[in-house]
Amino acid sequence: MIEDFDFFLPIKIIFGAGKFNQAGKEAAILGKKALVVTGRRSAEESGLLPRLTAQLDRQGMEWFLFNKVDPNPTDLIIDQGAAIARRENCDLVIGLGGGSSLDAAKSIAVAAKSGLPIWRHIASWENDYIAPEGALPIMAIETLAGTSSESDNLAVITRAKTNEKPGYASSFLFPKTAIIDPEVMVTVPPKITAITGFDIFCHSLEGYVSKASHPIAAILNEKAIEIVVNNLPKALNDGSDFEARAQLAFANILAGFSLSHSKATLLHAIEHPLSGHFNIPHAQGLAALFPKWLEFSWEGNPEKFKYLGKVFGLADSDNNKANLLKKSREFLKKIGLDVSLSELGVDLNNARRLIDDTFLYMAGGIKNNPVTAGKEEIFQLLKESL
Amino acid sequence: MIEDFDFFLPIKIIFGAGKFNQAGKEAAILGKKALVVTGRRSAEESGLLPRLTAQLDRQGMEWFLFNKVDPNPTDLIIDQGAAIARRENCDLVIGLGGGSSLDAAKSIAVAAKSGLPIWRHIASWENDYIAPEGALPIMAIETLAGTSSESDNLAVITRAKTNEKPGYASSFLFPKTAIIDPEVMVTVPPKITAITGFDIFCHSLEGYVSKASHPIAAILNEKAIEIVVNNLPKALNDGSDFEARAQLAFANILAGFSLSHSKATLLHAIEHPLSGHFNIPHAQGLAALFPKWLEFSWEGNPEKFKYLGKVFGLADSDNNKANLLKKSREFLKKIGLDVSLSELGVDLNNARRLIDDTFLYMAGGIKNNPVTAGKEEIFQLLKESL
Repeated sequence: MIEDFDFFLPIKIIFGAGKFNQAGKEAAILGKKALVVTGRRSAEESGLLPRLTAQLDRQGMEWFLFNKVDPNPTDLIIDQGAAIARRENCDLVIGLGGGSSLDAAKSIAVAAKSGLPIWRHIASWENDYIAPEGALPIMAIETLAGTSSESDNLAVITRAKTNEKPGYASSFLFPKTAIIDPEVMVTVPPKITAITGFDIFCHSLEGYVSKASHPIAAILNEKAIEIVVNNLPKALNDGSDFEARAQLAFANILAGFSLSHSKATLLHAIEHPLSGHFNIPHAQGLAALFPKWLEFSWEGNPEKFKYLGKVFGLADSDNNKANLLKKSREFLKKIGLDVSLSELGVDLNNARRLIDDTFLYMAGGIKNNPVTAGKEEIFQLLKESL
Repeated sequence: MIEDFDFFLPIKIIFGAGKFNQAGKEAAILGKKALVVTGRRSAEESGLLPRLTAQLDRQGMEWFLFNKVDPNPTDLIIDQGAAIARRENCDLVIGLGGGSSLDAAKSIAVAAKSGLPIWRHIASWENDYIAPEGALPIMAIETLAGTSSESDNLAVITRAKTNEKPGYASSFLFPKTAIIDPEVMVTVPPKITAITGFDIFCHSLEGYVSKASHPIAAILNEKAIEIVVNNLPKALNDGSDFEARAQLAFANILAGFSLSHSKATLLHAIEHPLSGHFNIPHAQGLAALFPKWLEFSWEGNPEKFKYLGKVFGLADSDNNKANLLKKSREFLKKIGLDVSLSELGVDLNNARRLIDDTFLYMAGGIKNNPVTAGKEEIFQLLKESL
């Protein structure tokens, strides 16, 4: 049965080797003065930042560099970037980097438009919340295939004061233009490739089994799951394998289309407070939680979990929960993410806070999980993942 | 190998039973005075037209009715509608109907914006061609799942003077909002259901095997092909089978997304001049040409044609051209479209004109066919399909 759905995806996606060189031309369509948002070092060191600014110069555009984005960017950094965008009269925000830089760019575009602290536009559970009402035009240049930020309407921002780390959604968070050039990704180191690739996998699988799945997203989810399972090990084995990189970048786009329309589940809901409080890489946290989440959730949607079993090579007669769990652990091992929460430095000394946070700002993920969890089940899941 | 691609799809799709009732609210977001474009009778008789205008009234909107669209709408009708839209100061065009009404609405929106005859924006092979430079906002309310006009950037218009019947593409032809309510489709008679359903099938298969296929479109093509093969016979067997109707309407959306990014092939290229000159239903023409086109094209992309074989139930060991041809003929018979060109009233007395037209305005389809055809091959294909 096809359920009712809306579908809206107003991004111009430009994908392919060498497409990075179109950035200047595309930027010039969107504005005259860009705030270029990126991390502290890597875009400079890789040479992508000077290559971008040279293109902007050639277009006769002005630009101002904001290279202060750390992993898990905070609201304070966003507010700082937005103040600069306003002061410098930027009419365009260009994000260059992975999920952190792109999420920061998108959020700066929202806060620069309204002039309000970004937290006011994020914390929908607080009294003074104001939904985003606009944004400067956003251009996303992806250098790391992971969070799907280039192809979705979401951003994840951590509140410095409280370590709350919610995602938020708005149609104003869609980039106008996204450039995905797999050629610039061949230098991404294996560890980062593994965690970002696993993030694509979780986004796709969660959107697929979610109670809030979406008919179009589900088609893309199936493809993205298959691509990651088949190509992530290849990209880890040989980072210069262009085709594997291109496939992962492609799967990342599909996951973003899906994330914009379906919703994540308990896995993401539990992980966000973990990386918020312990500052671990998000997908590393997902990997540590994955086996227990799978075990807990399988019965809620066996048909769809069996699709994953099939991708992992299970024959119909063997396609059950126990074997899927076994295959999943093997996959985690193969990509080097078979690590427990304790090994990541996570403890449960303040478990109540972690769980309260989950219910505070990740309630959607709990609601949409194939099997519903209460506080006690979440505590057990955390404990067994230590 | 993933090829380079662009992807752009700025339509707000609203899909589901009862969604027709959101038309007024959505229209009010887009404008204040609508030109309502529809056919001469069916929207009136089905009650959908008065239901729509009542909604517009409730929103306090003005509207002007243009109910002069015949099947295979001509440039003269478009120019007439555009003149009215300008005279009445409409700021929105609403298409209500099947592909003819929606293509007419989209084209009127373009011509009303520029004030030029629509042919100037279509005939890219003529000296005075001007690419569309804008359009009034377009809303598409689909009552017939066939041409994918609600979810693509294309329209097909016939030139009254010459019977040329090209399709043309522009990002300005994307509707802003499309409403697809399968509930309003349950009264579509079997014959129309069959030909519109087969149109979805051809759009999807052609986009899939085309030399100009597209990585994202290909994913959607596979799903749409599977849906049509499995659901069109059901909808024909029982027109009130809501689920089958919904599946076909869904496949039609997927085909539109695909058509906006991949390109049709020789099959569409040959058919357009036929329905242009003989005024036969487009997909009826496609069906008559299909077996010979398949036979001619299979070797150009056996892997992808084998996907269709698999959907038709062929085992790997039997999945060859001869068996696919057999299954395709059975499918055509099952849906009542196993009719030859002669039976449709087509003759080849002026074959040269038909073939010249194909090369004049459907050259892309020839170029993108899995196997390249020249004039002689096209003549043979027409002759063998008589």
